[in-house]
Amino acid sequence: MFSETKITVRYQETDKMGIVHHSVYPIWFECGRTDFIQRAGITYSRMESEGVRLPLLGLKCRYLYPSFYEDEMLVKTSIQNLTPTRISFCYEIYRKNYIKPVVTGETEHVWVDNNLKPVNMKKYKPQMYQIISDVFNRKGIVANG
Amino acid sequence: MFSETKITVRYQETDKMGIVHHSVYPIWFECGRTDFIQRAGITYSRMESEGVRLPLLGLKCRYLYPSFYEDEMLVKTSIQNLTPTRISFCYEIYRKNYIKPVVTGETEHVWVDNNLKPVNMKKYKPQMYQIISDVFNRKGIVANG
Amino acid sequence: MFSETKITVRYQETDKMGIVHHSVYPIWFECGRTDFIQRAGITYSRMESEGVRLPLLGLKCRYLYPSFYEDEMLVKTSIQNLTPTRISFCYEIYRKNYIKPVVTGETEHVWVDNNLKPVNMKKYKPQMYQIISDVFNRKGIVANG
Amino acid sequence: MFSETKITVRYQETDKMGIVHHSVYPIWFECGRTDFIQRAGITYSRMESEGVRLPLLGLKCRYLYPSFYEDEMLVKTSIQNLTPTRISFCYEIYRKNYIKPVVTGETEHVWVDNNLKPVNMKKYKPQMYQIISDVFNRKGIVANG
Repeated sequence: MFSETKITVRYQETDKMGIVHHSVYPIWFECGRTDFIQRAGITYSRMESEGVRLPLLGLKCRYLYPSFYEDEMLVKTSIQNLTPTRISFCYEIYRKNYIKPVVTGETEHVWVDNNLKPVNMKKYKPQMYQIISDVFNRKGIVANG
Repeated sequence: MFSETKITVRYQETDKMGIVHHSVYPIWFECGRTDFIQRAGITYSRMESEGVRLPLLGLKCRYLYPSFYEDEMLVKTSIQNLTPTRISFCYEIYRKNYIKPVVTGETEHVWVDNNLKPVNMKKYKPQMYQIISDVFNRKGIVANG
Repeated sequence: MFSETKITVRYQETDKMGIVHHSVYPIWFECGRTDFIQRAGITYSRMESEGVRLPLLGLKCRYLYPSFYEDEMLVKTSIQNLTPTRISFCYEIYRKNYIKPVVTGETEHVWVDNNLKPVNMKKYKPQMYQIISDVFNRKGIVANG
Repeated sequence: MFSETKITVRYQETDKMGIVHHSVYPIWFECGRTDFIQRAGITYSRMESEGVRLPLLGLKCRYLYPSFYEDEMLVKTSIQNLTPTRISFCYEIYRKNYIKPVVTGETEHVWVDNNLKPVNMKKYKPQMYQIISDVFNRKGIVANG
C-alpha cells in the first residue's frame, strides 16, 4: 500500500543555487509519513498520545533531479519493512507531469515509548501493531481524504 | 547590558534571491537570546527544567541590508523591558566590518509555566526573577565565555 | 480581496515546547503570499523571471494562540497597502474549527529588479502593476484553484 | 585530513520529541563542509563565484544518540573520495564530552558549473582540483582559524 501527498515548493525551501535545498526532502518524507499513517486509520499524533514514537535510526536520499520554487510535488510513501521493534518507510518524490522521481529515499525507525526506550510493539501495543501490519500487507493506493 | 553572539551564515539559510531568507533572522534572535540568558548566569535549559518558559507574544523585524552565505554575523541582544509577567528583548544584527546593522528587531514574551499558563515571576520564581532584573539593570557587555 | 491557503503542520515545524515554533509563521505568510499572487493571475515565479522581486523591509507577527502538529491551518492573505515603490501584505492564520486567528501579521516589501535595485513599478512594469492594483481594489475572496 | 566545527544546538532545531530533529544533521554536515573547504585554503563562496558548484547526489545519515537544546556539538568532516567528476565527504557529529558520535553520515556530490552541468574538474579548474587533491591526501587535522 502507498499514499500520495501533494506539496507546493516554498520560497524558503530554495537556496542560492536556485533549487530546493537537499535538507528539505527529509522533511517532505516526514510529511508523506504523517499522511501515510493518517490514511492507515491512526494518526501519528494519536500514536504519540498513546505512548508510541518513531525516532529515526537511518536516512538515505538519492537526488536525481532538482526541483524549483512553486513546483507541485508528489510524495509516494510506503512501508518497506516492518517488525515488532523496527519499521522502515520508502519514498519517491515526483515533480508534476514528470515520469521519473526527482528524489528517492528511505527512513528506518525504532519503536520507542515516551521515554525514548525501545519497545516490542507486539507486546506493548498489539492492536496498533495489527493496524500497521494490515496496511503493510495491503496492496494499492490508500484512499485519499 | 547586552551580549554579542557570533554566527556564520549557512548555505541552507540562503534562498533563490541569493541572500539570507528573512525567516532566518528570528532564529538568530533566538540564538542571541539563548546566549544572553546563559551569560546572565542561568541557562534557558535550566529555566525550562525549573518550570519556566518564554513563548512569544510578538515579533518585529526591520530589514535594512541583505546578508550572504559565509558572512560572519554578530547578534547584539539586550532586554528592552521587564515586568513580573512579561519580558521583551531587542536585537541588532551586524555583518562583520560593517558599522550599521543589517537587521534590527524585538521579541515580546510572556512568562509561563510548563503547562503554558501565565505566571507572576515575582511570586513563582523570585530568585530567578532577581537574577534577570539584575542583568536588566546592569550596563555594558556581558563577559564573553 | 483575500486568498485562503491550507497548510498542515509538519512535525519538523514543532519545537521542544510541543508547539509550532514562532519562526514558522513568517514562512506560512510567504506560502499565503505565493498563493495570493498566483490567484491574482500572475505567479511570483513569473514575476521573478520578468525581473521583479519583493524582498522584505519589515515583518510583524502577533502570537495569540499556539498551534500543534497535524493541525490544519488556514492562511488568509490580502494586500494592506500598495504604491509604485512598496507593497505590504497582511495575514491571519486560523486553526481549523476555531473562530479567532492564532497568529496575525504583516510584511512590507520593496519592489526591486534582479540586482536588488529599487524600481518604480508604474514605469518599470506598468502592466504587472495594473494587475496587482486591480486585485488590491477588488473585494471578496479570490477564486480557489 | 579532517576539520572540526563547533555548533551550539538552537531551540528552533528541536522538535516536539524534545530532541534535535533529524533533518537538522544534514544542515550541520553542510556547516562542516563549508568549514572544511575554507580551512583547505579556498572558500565555497569563491568556488561558486569561479563557476563551480557541488549539488548532492546522495545523503546517508546514521542516528545513534539524540542531542538536545544548548548542547555543544562538534562536526568532524573529511573527504571520503575524490575524482575529477565526483567528491564525497564523511562526517561524525559528537556531543561535547562524549566519546562516541551521536550521528554519522556521508554526502556524495557532483562537480558542476553555474548551469548545473557536470564538469571534469581536472580540465575545467585544474588548479582548484589540485588544492582539493592535496587536502584529500594530507593527514591530520586542519589548522583551526
